[in-house]
Amino acid sequence: MTSAYYQDSLRTDFVRQYNARIYLDHAAATPVDSAVQAAMAPYIHEQWHNPSARYEAARSTRRAVEAARADIAHVLAAKPTEIIFTASATESANLAVQGVLRAAAPGAHWITTAIEHEAVLAQVPPLERQGYPATVVPVSMAGIVSVRDIMAAVTDGTVLVSMMLANNEIGTLQPVAEVARAVAAVRLERLARGVGRPLYVHTDATQAGNYVSLQVSRLGVDMLTLNAAKLYGPKGIGLLYVRHGTKLEPLFYGGGQERGRRSGTEPVAGCVGLAAALVAAASRRDSESHRLTGLRDEAIEALLAAVPGARLNGDPQRRLPNNISLTLPGADGEALVLYLDNAGFETATGSACAASQTEPSHVLLAIGRSRSEAAQSLRLTLGRSTDEDALAALVRTLPGIVERVRALPSVA
Amino acid sequence: MTSAYYQDSLRTDFVRQYNARIYLDHAAATPVDSAVQAAMAPYIHEQWHNPSARYEAARSTRRAVEAARADIAHVLAAKPTEIIFTASATESANLAVQGVLRAAAPGAHWITTAIEHEAVLAQVPPLERQGYPATVVPVSMAGIVSVRDIMAAVTDGTVLVSMMLANNEIGTLQPVAEVARAVAAVRLERLARGVGRPLYVHTDATQAGNYVSLQVSRLGVDMLTLNAAKLYGPKGIGLLYVRHGTKLEPLFYGGGQERGRRSGTEPVAGCVGLAAALVAAASRRDSESHRLTGLRDEAIEALLAAVPGARLNGDPQRRLPNNISLTLPGADGEALVLYLDNAGFETATGSACAASQTEPSHVLLAIGRSRSEAAQSLRLTLGRSTDEDALAALVRTLPGIVERVRALPSVA
Repeated sequence: MTSAYYQDSLRTDFVRQYNARIYLDHAAATPVDSAVQAAMAPYIHEQWHNPSARYEAARSTRRAVEAARADIAHVLAAKPTEIIFTASATESANLAVQGVLRAAAPGAHWITTAIEHEAVLAQVPPLERQGYPATVVPVSMAGIVSVRDIMAAVTDGTVLVSMMLANNEIGTLQPVAEVARAVAAVRLERLARGVGRPLYVHTDATQAGNYVSLQVSRLGVDMLTLNAAKLYGPKGIGLLYVRHGTKLEPLFYGGGQERGRRSGTEPVAGCVGLAAALVAAASRRDSESHRLTGLRDEAIEALLAAVPGARLNGDPQRRLPNNISLTLPGADGEALVLYLDNAGFETATGSACAASQTEPSHVLLAIGRSRSEAAQSLRLTLGRSTDEDALAALVRTLPGIVERVRALPSVA
Repeated sequence: MTSAYYQDSLRTDFVRQYNARIYLDHAAATPVDSAVQAAMAPYIHEQWHNPSARYEAARSTRRAVEAARADIAHVLAAKPTEIIFTASATESANLAVQGVLRAAAPGAHWITTAIEHEAVLAQVPPLERQGYPATVVPVSMAGIVSVRDIMAAVTDGTVLVSMMLANNEIGTLQPVAEVARAVAAVRLERLARGVGRPLYVHTDATQAGNYVSLQVSRLGVDMLTLNAAKLYGPKGIGLLYVRHGTKLEPLFYGGGQERGRRSGTEPVAGCVGLAAALVAAASRRDSESHRLTGLRDEAIEALLAAVPGARLNGDPQRRLPNNISLTLPGADGEALVLYLDNAGFETATGSACAASQTEPSHVLLAIGRSRSEAAQSLRLTLGRSTDEDALAALVRTLPGIVERVRALPSVA
């Protein structure tokens, strides 16, 4: 059995070896890149002027906002006027979904998947009450949605399919481009039949931004959501890409900034930080994806071998390079996170993006885990600071901690 | 007549004398206080963890968010759970207005004034289309709304009165507390008659924050909007105070942060910056109000004497200590701003909070100025950096610039 001494000795080992904690929760938040901090600094310290004012100092902040927008558009292979700055991925996803539904006729229908982030899925009940019904399409046991299932849900009343590019809990990559191609065919077919209702595709690319190409024409999407806080950028800034011609009602009204689609003075430092983060992420994308895929697969193999009963959640191949999601039967996830924290590892049970986490993960339930299995899960998400040594330390530590947590008296 | 030489010599004079430009647009944006920058820095550099995660480093960011909320609540004499962080005053005002209307029965009516910021007034047409009619109450020639006019618009269908505490263009202080008292009487009377519909008062206190007490019980309001960027804090963060018991539908849905009323990961640095800015503003409120009122009144007197035909917009007494709004007949406001910029002064024609400023100010039209008079106006807003020398320099410079601009060939 593990002992308090054992756990303390582990901790000392890591402090000695790394002189730092091992952060394995990059899906929840990323450190702010020092180059991003440097890019933002002038707009916090000196260039705090309102970008809509008319004097030169203010026009200079306007140029910074528009340069940021152009840099972002370049990464997405989009036009600068197609980028709307928002305060978060949540606001962005709400602008996408509520925006096109409210701009369409009452009763407009939309389709999403059972494993979306709450920023999309939590819109289903209130929008249903407001007269916008949704179809929530299930996913396979591997956590992948079927193109056929999505398309089978499309009716002449459907105006939107919203599906994430990569899942935030189990890391599975979704067939967004395939759905977008099938949707394009439906559009042509609607045109031929004289059905005027638009049909859009929105993707929440928040978790994919560091690892997957975000070129919107390759993805074929009409709208795409990103968040700086997952891209080694600052908190409080995100964006919605909106293809020209997409009819969108704003979430809020005011001075008419962002071409009337998102009023409010632009947070200049945030816009600059998001652009710097996205450009840096794009330039590292291929090398980081390659490096982390190798680390991920080695760690998964070692962890499944080292912890009796452990199972991988999500598809083994079609997953983000940085995602390891495990079900560890008999070990409470919350306890695992606290014990791992005590041993120097920062991890998660699932999404950290919800204020309350008392309910089992809807993603794990959607892939067929039971409620108790869902509560016995651990999410490890790698990132730029993760190296072989960090994961080797985790592989050495986790089995003992699982054993210890399994030995805890059960509350149930 | 003025000459190019004259203007250049003025500029040189200021550069020599101040080695800095003279900023007179504090209503559009304020510098970020160095103490505020210092308070925010740790949450940009090291403590970037997601406040909803479970390990100690993340719980520390949660404590920072909640300490910021408590500091803010203290200034407002409110409960911490009554503070909702938003990305801007615009979002805050939209959450207030849309929030209570959508939470009420369809057809709910609201009342606002003709001189509100676009963040409130721009909601009127889209909400009307969505079945929520508004009454927009006019103001006096001095720019003050009448309590009687507001209360005359209240029907049994009314759920909200939204009126600003101080106007952003002409600085007039509105009788919010008096309206709130009259509304309280209507509530009692509704109760006696068995009318169940709520009646709330929201105030946009964005421009008042530095100069007016924000204690919500003294104001008697149910909701109050603030924005850090006007309080020597960062851009991209605001708040809505919401009295306990107020029924509010969120603008967007997601992880359920802010007690379900504003989903999205909290922008920790922004929350901390807003709190630091608000606490500092409250501690300087009385002394700055006194100091600036003196400077303002001296400058108004000198400017009206020095510029032939100049008129003050708004009430001479019931106005913000930092606001000077002038109509300068025959001088185009846009040209004045550009010529003043060239001479070292940063000023505005009116609100800088709109992306497009081609339309004449709705505030100046509402107080009876003609369209051409509204286009011949200048807003000077003082702040912490403003001293007697700065205003003396303005008084010396403005007459020559007005003369020069009046001599420009007319486009019309």
